[in-house]
Amino acid sequence: MGEGTKNVVLLDFWPSSFGMRQRIALALKGIEYEAREENLFDKSTLLLEMNSVHKKILVLIHNGNSICESLIILEYIDQVWHDKYPLFPSHPYERSQAGFWADYIDKKIYSTGRKVWSGKGEDQEKAKKEFIEIFKTLEGELGDKTYFGGDNLGFVDLALTCANFSIEAECPKLVAWAKRCMQIESVSNSLPHPHNIYAYVLELKHKLGLA
Amino acid sequence: MGEGTKNVVLLDFWPSSFGMRQRIALALKGIEYEAREENLFDKSTLLLEMNSVHKKILVLIHNGNSICESLIILEYIDQVWHDKYPLFPSHPYERSQAGFWADYIDKKIYSTGRKVWSGKGEDQEKAKKEFIEIFKTLEGELGDKTYFGGDNLGFVDLALTCANFSIEAECPKLVAWAKRCMQIESVSNSLPHPHNIYAYVLELKHKLGLA
Repeated sequence: MGEGTKNVVLLDFWPSSFGMRQRIALALKGIEYEAREENLFDKSTLLLEMNSVHKKILVLIHNGNSICESLIILEYIDQVWHDKYPLFPSHPYERSQAGFWADYIDKKIYSTGRKVWSGKGEDQEKAKKEFIEIFKTLEGELGDKTYFGGDNLGFVDLALTCANFSIEAECPKLVAWAKRCMQIESVSNSLPHPHNIYAYVLELKHKLGLA
Repeated sequence: MGEGTKNVVLLDFWPSSFGMRQRIALALKGIEYEAREENLFDKSTLLLEMNSVHKKILVLIHNGNSICESLIILEYIDQVWHDKYPLFPSHPYERSQAGFWADYIDKKIYSTGRKVWSGKGEDQEKAKKEFIEIFKTLEGELGDKTYFGGDNLGFVDLALTCANFSIEAECPKLVAWAKRCMQIESVSNSLPHPHNIYAYVLELKHKLGLA
């Protein structure tokens, strides 16, 4: 396609697990862009204008047009800059399966994850079990493939990279997959350092009066 | 594309508001298919096999492959049978906007709708206000277009057709849109009759011991 890589701006927030997807995709495709860090406690006028419906990150601004919602931005990036490192398979059925698993990740991991973090007692135990089941299902889908996308990273890999997990005992293949992903420079360079995330969580707790 | 229209099966449930989307899309594109009615209280082995992850309708089976999740099925149908009545605009930006609004409908209408039906007192009042705001936002996006898709029905129109609403006073343009949609035979023939829905709700309440 004739689209250039100029005029690409990402309204981002470095600890965002959704932002990682976009950063990795842009890196894999070698697209130059300007990352503008948002302060979620004092959002910029640009963010409020560019995502007037949800008023939240992430937003990709390309040639003045804004594209919102993490998975939709990934699809857009893949369509506009398709030639280098395609993220979707070209066959409609394979494509639908990639869409299905990315949707599964978004629907299941975050809601169940929240229950694990915020739940107590029996509810928390139940949520933990659900959480493990979700990852086992994903491990089943990964099977013996190198990546969910096959030999290369694809849409599902990018959707899942954001999820930090310590499930080595239950899902060894999935943990091996995460390690493989981290060996790809476009991935490891796009992820914030765990120490920084930890410091940020402490700061946030302090800000919210929880620590 | 060289794909035929044979071997298309839809595992459906007639009152399903999600199923309407598929039925309309298949009708618009003139695709012959076999609709198999599922009993949600006693799901078929075929359904449990074909959607082993979520174990629920809707499922499109095409040449033995199963595609699940309402919006993903719509995308698949549009990709395989693209020539007749395309549902997506061809430009990536316009396409991303259609994806954004369909996602908005799925995320907002059903969760808020549930709060309206199941909430009480102040919570219900709050949910009702939210509900109206959602439709006003959609009315803003519709603007003066005939359909969300422009001169023809598109992805967003099909995503929204499923929502029954009586919001004439607040959103006259949206109500006029719904009426326009109903004048299209592929739409009106794909929707269950309100009387049947009413009878079904009564039956369901009875089954669940609520009436």
